[in-house]
Amino acid sequence: MTGVLFGASYYHEYLPAPRLERDLDLMVAAGFTVLRVGESTWASYEPEEGKISFDALAAVVDAAAARGLRVIVGTPSYAVPPWLARRYPEVMAQLPSGQVLPYGARQNVDFTNPVYRRHVERVVRAMAERFGQHEGVIGFQVDNEIGVHELAAPAVVDRFRRHVLDEFGSVDAINERWGLTYWSHRLTDIEDLWAPAGNTNPGYALEWARFQAGLTVEFLAWQRDLLREHLAPRMFVTHDVVGGDSLGSTAVRGIPAAMDRTAVNLYFPLQDAIALPDAQPEATTPLAPWWLTDRGASTMLWRGDMAYSLRGPRGERFAVTEAQAGSIGEHATNVPPYPGQLRLVAHALVARGADLLAYWHWHTLHYGAETYWGGVLGHDLEPGRVYREVAALGAELGGPELDPLVPDADVAVLSSRDSLKALQFQPPLLEPGTDRADPHSYHRIFMRCYDAALAAGAQVRIVHEDGEWDECRVLVVPALYIADDALLERLVAHARNGAHVVLTFRSGYADQWARVRAVRAPGPLRAAVGAGYAEYTTLAQPVALTGFGSGSAEGWADLLEPEGAEVLAGYDHPFLRPYAAVTTNVVGAGRMTWLGTLPDVATTGRLVAWALRERGVQPVSSAWGELPPSVRVSSARRPDGTRLWFVANHSWDPVTVSAPGIELGPWESRVVDG
Amino acid sequence: MTGVLFGASYYHEYLPAPRLERDLDLMVAAGFTVLRVGESTWASYEPEEGKISFDALAAVVDAAAARGLRVIVGTPSYAVPPWLARRYPEVMAQLPSGQVLPYGARQNVDFTNPVYRRHVERVVRAMAERFGQHEGVIGFQVDNEIGVHELAAPAVVDRFRRHVLDEFGSVDAINERWGLTYWSHRLTDIEDLWAPAGNTNPGYALEWARFQAGLTVEFLAWQRDLLREHLAPRMFVTHDVVGGDSLGSTAVRGIPAAMDRTAVNLYFPLQDAIALPDAQPEATTPLAPWWLTDRGASTMLWRGDMAYSLRGPRGERFAVTEAQAGSIGEHATNVPPYPGQLRLVAHALVARGADLLAYWHWHTLHYGAETYWGGVLGHDLEPGRVYREVAALGAELGGPELDPLVPDADVAVLSSRDSLKALQFQPPLLEPGTDRADPHSYHRIFMRCYDAALAAGAQVRIVHEDGEWDECRVLVVPALYIADDALLERLVAHARNGAHVVLTFRSGYADQWARVRAVRAPGPLRAAVGAGYAEYTTLAQPVALTGFGSGSAEGWADLLEPEGAEVLAGYDHPFLRPYAAVTTNVVGAGRMTWLGTLPDVATTGRLVAWALRERGVQPVSSAWGELPPSVRVSSARRPDGTRLWFVANHSWDPVTVSAPGIELGPWESRVVDG
Amino acid sequence: MTGVLFGASYYHEYLPAPRLERDLDLMVAAGFTVLRVGESTWASYEPEEGKISFDALAAVVDAAAARGLRVIVGTPSYAVPPWLARRYPEVMAQLPSGQVLPYGARQNVDFTNPVYRRHVERVVRAMAERFGQHEGVIGFQVDNEIGVHELAAPAVVDRFRRHVLDEFGSVDAINERWGLTYWSHRLTDIEDLWAPAGNTNPGYALEWARFQAGLTVEFLAWQRDLLREHLAPRMFVTHDVVGGDSLGSTAVRGIPAAMDRTAVNLYFPLQDAIALPDAQPEATTPLAPWWLTDRGASTMLWRGDMAYSLRGPRGERFAVTEAQAGSIGEHATNVPPYPGQLRLVAHALVARGADLLAYWHWHTLHYGAETYWGGVLGHDLEPGRVYREVAALGAELGGPELDPLVPDADVAVLSSRDSLKALQFQPPLLEPGTDRADPHSYHRIFMRCYDAALAAGAQVRIVHEDGEWDECRVLVVPALYIADDALLERLVAHARNGAHVVLTFRSGYADQWARVRAVRAPGPLRAAVGAGYAEYTTLAQPVALTGFGSGSAEGWADLLEPEGAEVLAGYDHPFLRPYAAVTTNVVGAGRMTWLGTLPDVATTGRLVAWALRERGVQPVSSAWGELPPSVRVSSARRPDGTRLWFVANHSWDPVTVSAPGIELGPWESRVVDG
Repeated sequence: MTGVLFGASYYHEYLPAPRLERDLDLMVAAGFTVLRVGESTWASYEPEEGKISFDALAAVVDAAAARGLRVIVGTPSYAVPPWLARRYPEVMAQLPSGQVLPYGARQNVDFTNPVYRRHVERVVRAMAERFGQHEGVIGFQVDNEIGVHELAAPAVVDRFRRHVLDEFGSVDAINERWGLTYWSHRLTDIEDLWAPAGNTNPGYALEWARFQAGLTVEFLAWQRDLLREHLAPRMFVTHDVVGGDSLGSTAVRGIPAAMDRTAVNLYFPLQDAIALPDAQPEATTPLAPWWLTDRGASTMLWRGDMAYSLRGPRGERFAVTEAQAGSIGEHATNVPPYPGQLRLVAHALVARGADLLAYWHWHTLHYGAETYWGGVLGHDLEPGRVYREVAALGAELGGPELDPLVPDADVAVLSSRDSLKALQFQPPLLEPGTDRADPHSYHRIFMRCYDAALAAGAQVRIVHEDGEWDECRVLVVPALYIADDALLERLVAHARNGAHVVLTFRSGYADQWARVRAVRAPGPLRAAVGAGYAEYTTLAQPVALTGFGSGSAEGWADLLEPEGAEVLAGYDHPFLRPYAAVTTNVVGAGRMTWLGTLPDVATTGRLVAWALRERGVQPVSSAWGELPPSVRVSSARRPDGTRLWFVANHSWDPVTVSAPGIELGPWESRVVDG
Repeated sequence: MTGVLFGASYYHEYLPAPRLERDLDLMVAAGFTVLRVGESTWASYEPEEGKISFDALAAVVDAAAARGLRVIVGTPSYAVPPWLARRYPEVMAQLPSGQVLPYGARQNVDFTNPVYRRHVERVVRAMAERFGQHEGVIGFQVDNEIGVHELAAPAVVDRFRRHVLDEFGSVDAINERWGLTYWSHRLTDIEDLWAPAGNTNPGYALEWARFQAGLTVEFLAWQRDLLREHLAPRMFVTHDVVGGDSLGSTAVRGIPAAMDRTAVNLYFPLQDAIALPDAQPEATTPLAPWWLTDRGASTMLWRGDMAYSLRGPRGERFAVTEAQAGSIGEHATNVPPYPGQLRLVAHALVARGADLLAYWHWHTLHYGAETYWGGVLGHDLEPGRVYREVAALGAELGGPELDPLVPDADVAVLSSRDSLKALQFQPPLLEPGTDRADPHSYHRIFMRCYDAALAAGAQVRIVHEDGEWDECRVLVVPALYIADDALLERLVAHARNGAHVVLTFRSGYADQWARVRAVRAPGPLRAAVGAGYAEYTTLAQPVALTGFGSGSAEGWADLLEPEGAEVLAGYDHPFLRPYAAVTTNVVGAGRMTWLGTLPDVATTGRLVAWALRERGVQPVSSAWGELPPSVRVSSARRPDGTRLWFVANHSWDPVTVSAPGIELGPWESRVVDG
Repeated sequence: MTGVLFGASYYHEYLPAPRLERDLDLMVAAGFTVLRVGESTWASYEPEEGKISFDALAAVVDAAAARGLRVIVGTPSYAVPPWLARRYPEVMAQLPSGQVLPYGARQNVDFTNPVYRRHVERVVRAMAERFGQHEGVIGFQVDNEIGVHELAAPAVVDRFRRHVLDEFGSVDAINERWGLTYWSHRLTDIEDLWAPAGNTNPGYALEWARFQAGLTVEFLAWQRDLLREHLAPRMFVTHDVVGGDSLGSTAVRGIPAAMDRTAVNLYFPLQDAIALPDAQPEATTPLAPWWLTDRGASTMLWRGDMAYSLRGPRGERFAVTEAQAGSIGEHATNVPPYPGQLRLVAHALVARGADLLAYWHWHTLHYGAETYWGGVLGHDLEPGRVYREVAALGAELGGPELDPLVPDADVAVLSSRDSLKALQFQPPLLEPGTDRADPHSYHRIFMRCYDAALAAGAQVRIVHEDGEWDECRVLVVPALYIADDALLERLVAHARNGAHVVLTFRSGYADQWARVRAVRAPGPLRAAVGAGYAEYTTLAQPVALTGFGSGSAEGWADLLEPEGAEVLAGYDHPFLRPYAAVTTNVVGAGRMTWLGTLPDVATTGRLVAWALRERGVQPVSSAWGELPPSVRVSSARRPDGTRLWFVANHSWDPVTVSAPGIELGPWESRVVDG
């Protein structure tokens, strides 16, 4: 395999009239090398229970293979036929609220249900038998974007009881670790454990999230094992992790681990939402569907870095099984890419480690819930502006110089799914300007750190608690709320061995069961941090910081007292003046820096830049000198150590990048061999 | 019958103490000529199952008739007795969500239910037997403000399955037209068709809306037929179509067609909400209940025009069975009319074709959900300010010169209930400043066109897809999203025959089954429009327009490319600069103009004014020359062709209308014989 | 008993490790004299059905008593064990919506359920037997913060039918007083009365609220009677009325009446939310959990005054069984008190009549829903800043000079729970800037009056309809919507006897059944008020007032016409100019003043100040002369008539109070012997 696999999902069966040959010819002309097919139309393969035929799909696969296109076949379990829902209503998912999902959408089944499993097994085996040795097929995708709903049918809740008992060993251990004496919730018997609908206990909530992630992974692994009985050994099995904000789901690390490779579906706001400098949030609000809460030019980078991080101890290249060719979402959120933006996004993803880029989808649909989710072809099915931009990109991406790249990184940022989940249940920040807790609190703090690294001119590697980060000389740790002692000791050891570890407020506050530590904070980190606190306060308004730039503190402030650490910043506020905002402490060969608050991006960026300098880390992209404010540079290394630079102008205004004297047009991204 | 019938709904049974004679005397003194009675108190007529007596109601009808008042008797089916709900719980409506409506309000029954029908038949026949030959009775109203809830009991959903199969002919046709291959929704058997709770398919949603409208009309027609077995031939049967935003319901055209005449209940915001020039929306927000989303002086006119349009191919005069005498809504929305506003509103309605005007209601209630819905008499039951204004109006409206008027119109605006419904399900616009789709999108576009006509000094005739508009030389077509080929061809033919047809974005985009056309847009209109587009974009912010005034474009922009048409306006924006905002094309003897965006009212008004000039249409009211900004003129013709002018000052400030030198006081409206 | 009882709730069973002795020693060192224990951990006492042991609790009580600490023992009925919910699911509360509350929180049972009662009786009797004669125990608390949910299981609704029939005497009386002829709701049989889910009738809604309050009181009284069979006569029985906005619940007066003394749980916004002059609402929004809607420095005073008012005809001293030591609410609402604020709050409560002040709770919990509800000790369980402030206060509050104080009051404000409930169902005001009714309307009007009294330099006594207010020379009556004729006549007689009664709009509008009076308003008050009105209007925008200061009118305006009264203020608005905004009328030896609108605080304050002057009432605190804007003075009398002054600086800026030359530091409150 050379270059980046490039293509789209293709649904010939959705077209108003047959046009297989014409479509495939257009794809070949656009430089396509890969197609994804088959995952959405179970009812077409099995219109009556047990009467299965893949002839129509085979015609597509055969014709694609005849043109040298590689095919990924998806198992159709995520969208069940109406006859299945009608005859076996027990397969429909029951939510914690008790609601049984009605038929009419997709991802609405209880995938733990044995009746559902029996039907899935039959259709998946038949599919694997038909395509498992097909020369044009390079791999299978199991299911599609799983994990949207929590499952809570009585049998699932009962399984949760077994799970908790297994994990904790005894009812007494559950009582103790979750503090069930409180509010008279002590269990006498595991059968006493309540269903999630009424739960108010943080420990339960965290374990429930882990359990749900486990159910998801188990189902996908079960399908994987079914497939492996039939597939040629050269084929991979993967699952397309649902993108968007759901990269935060707890299963996000478990799924790629259970698969042969990472695949993700990545969507972003576009148009002015990716301008640099960043536009005001109000102006970019309508530039993506409401369920895509991120905005800004960093969105595509963090999603790429997250995808790279998901598999293996140090991350691994990934497939983008779905990316946007045009508008995404609904009729009211039409945000087609400005000219150049498709290439800019593709470059960013390749720079961060994508080795497959497939648009969703080849053609915009004429019916159904996603009528306004734009494809490479629009509703008119004619090659147009988007097709031409995609085809130009296809010509460029096929080149051998893009394979296999390792993205550069100057700073590591630790991502904790457990902390994200625990802080969804108990958010530490308010939605700005309101008195309501912000369930996105963890992500806000994480993105502040990520954006600060970019502001410092650095590129980021995202790392996970269970991964390796020994080589990361600057490690930023946002709100690591959930951590056992071993993890905290590992962070201290990392500093002691020469790294600069920057931690934010809330790190180390609770243990692995979401139980707050009963010692002065930050508990096991306290000696190494050289500071402690017993109180903290919500910041109703931003508070000016003193020292280390003249920025402002937002949302939260630890009442932090130095215990040997150096104070880098304080507060200009009568209540907070006695306390430190940011401290730093030498630990062995390294340092631990504590952010007791959420400074603005620029201030946090100065802190990260200082940490890099202090460790003697020169950001890779500093080779380009001072960049115009609208330009961002990403880079990656070839196997021989040479670099590819991706230089992008996030603006309508043309710019010249002074160092190599490159001129960039509106929204132009250029690959430069370095 | 001469003049306008003038009166109120009268509920003697709601009064704290008997005062029939006094009330009727006050009514006669106020110039009343008509009363509506009887529709709300089934439990009083039939306190025990089968024990029916209308003696109390007859006393009211007799006393009214004795004074020469004409009476409309309402059948009481919309508000069932508690014993009926208790003994036969199956009569309560079940919503798509599965919720069975609890007892305690009204319009909460499943009017398709046979048990309910049996009880309705008994009480309606008894009522018809009692009053069907009464000399004081001029007609019957069946039920009251039907169509508030969607009905979705299992039997109704099953009936929907039969309906769809009948309409489409086969399961395969359903699969094809709704695109059910998508997401594995293909039906094998009509029994596979899911209930509406989980539906995500636009074609299903549109057909469900049509089906619900059909149920409504069928029920009213069934009652009509029951009545006709008992009624004197001179009597009419009608139904009061619920006013407010519900004039958008799909049944709005079917109901009047099934009745002997049109009746509507019309409510508006008042006080400063009807000032001219229009006040800022923020200032008028509290000036009506939240469920009345329209604001502005045009509200009363468009509701009148819509009422006129509902029946017959070219519209027909209508009864206003309910109008506000005082505050409407709840305790917190007390918006009594400023002095003069009752007359101003009455003039506007009469100018638009009302031949009956009845207030809801005679007296303000002392209990119940509508305690703060003001009547002609207030809670003190004494004739006060409102009574005096009503009585003055009664003296004026009884005159013969008001009968039978035909409202003038210079511009036609096409109203499409199907498009409204389809764009409620898939709204094309965002709620301003948010990332949420606006279910009122269609109405916003419609009202922009309507208000533009007024801004151009024109009066409007609203027309429907199935009506006649051959004589309309300027026809404005807002967002005609749902249209079969024949309808689009009819529009083109209309232009070809000499009309100027102005269409907005989204017109012709989907077919009669809400399926997007698979050709370059605007599909069958493309050649006549002389322009096409393959893409469109949401406008996150207003964009300045170039040419044709210096207005701004809002919400949406087609990426419109001229294909022979002249460009009237473009965009001042780097992405949109290559595209046209407004084009116009000569077609045979006429023109087709395309608005690819939603310009502000003033700009759209200039476009309509140009279309009128271009067709040589002089707006009727231009006879008055330039009007002060607070003055609006409506007009109507008598059978002899002479005109009546209704000249209204929407302001506290007195003005002089220069042409005929008329002085108008605060909020004064004057009838001028022209 | 001398001084103020001072302490906390103590949950030794929640601590991560035993530390009873250390905790009690710390408490004694902090001047603690009282502990509350036991109400939250039924499952610990009865881990299996019928196996009850209080040994662990006894160890705490014994050790506390050994140090001279007084103990209040709470019965654990509000938080049931999981085995009870699992075995007897019928005990879980069913809401009017039909939802049965899931297990997992607290206060989620149907306390009318006989199975639940049987289990409560067993555990309460066992507790009373164990501690009912204990020398260290001074009293019992039954249940905890009851009244959160409405109960609506079928048996409860059936009981409501009996209740209504008993109250009204006959079905005909119900029909007549609730106006059930309307919308065909007439009952033929009491069984016809519908469940509350669908109710739209105001009379029903008010009676349902009274019925729910009655159920609550009945349950607490039942527990009280159980206890009394076992308790030493010296012991009191009480219940801690849930604080916050729930001081508005209808049971708030019934519960203390059924108990031996008043106990309340009082929480407030802190930090800048209690600054003087008051900060802008936007700035203080995040300074308390969302369910605490009050903001401002008056919050602590009105809650104290309300607590004082709850029991007896003239009010009575009260226990604060819960007060905040630190942050309250959730993770995102950390609002620890600024240094000095704990003392400032404590002084305010003592000044208003608190004789027991106990923090909730001794230590911050490490798990559970209230993990971030701060205790005297934080999560680190070390005495810190808060402990030191509490201990200083403990030393101060033990002194004999604080006992038993009677709070001073210059103005009485009438509180009507019936009016609050009725105006929750039919709110007269909109949420500012919206078109939605504000369910807090009554409280907004009440607090406007309360704050106006403070603005006039006066202190307030809150009185109830059924209390004594003969000695109150100025009585302010906000929105007394629900009132029978006798109550209105009593107000008139009070004026006639020499008082100045100031009433606001909506007073006297409906009778005791929420039925609007059918006479010119304000009905029975009209002659004494010397003015009347038949209409009123919502004010969409504030309207300038003329006369009596140049303030503005908000939200509502009666179209008030003087009938002998003097006009104090009018409106500067073309519609409202003919009407009076404020009138006053001499009545016998006194006056009645009518506010037809809601003037701003300053204007309302000038009105109250005038009423005081006019009656010759010199506010007690006027002895201090003009105070700096950040300073507020409260006062109370000792039995010998001498005064204690509580002088508080609500600001970070130190001030000098000129009269006695006292200097106050930031947020300092000082007790001055007067």
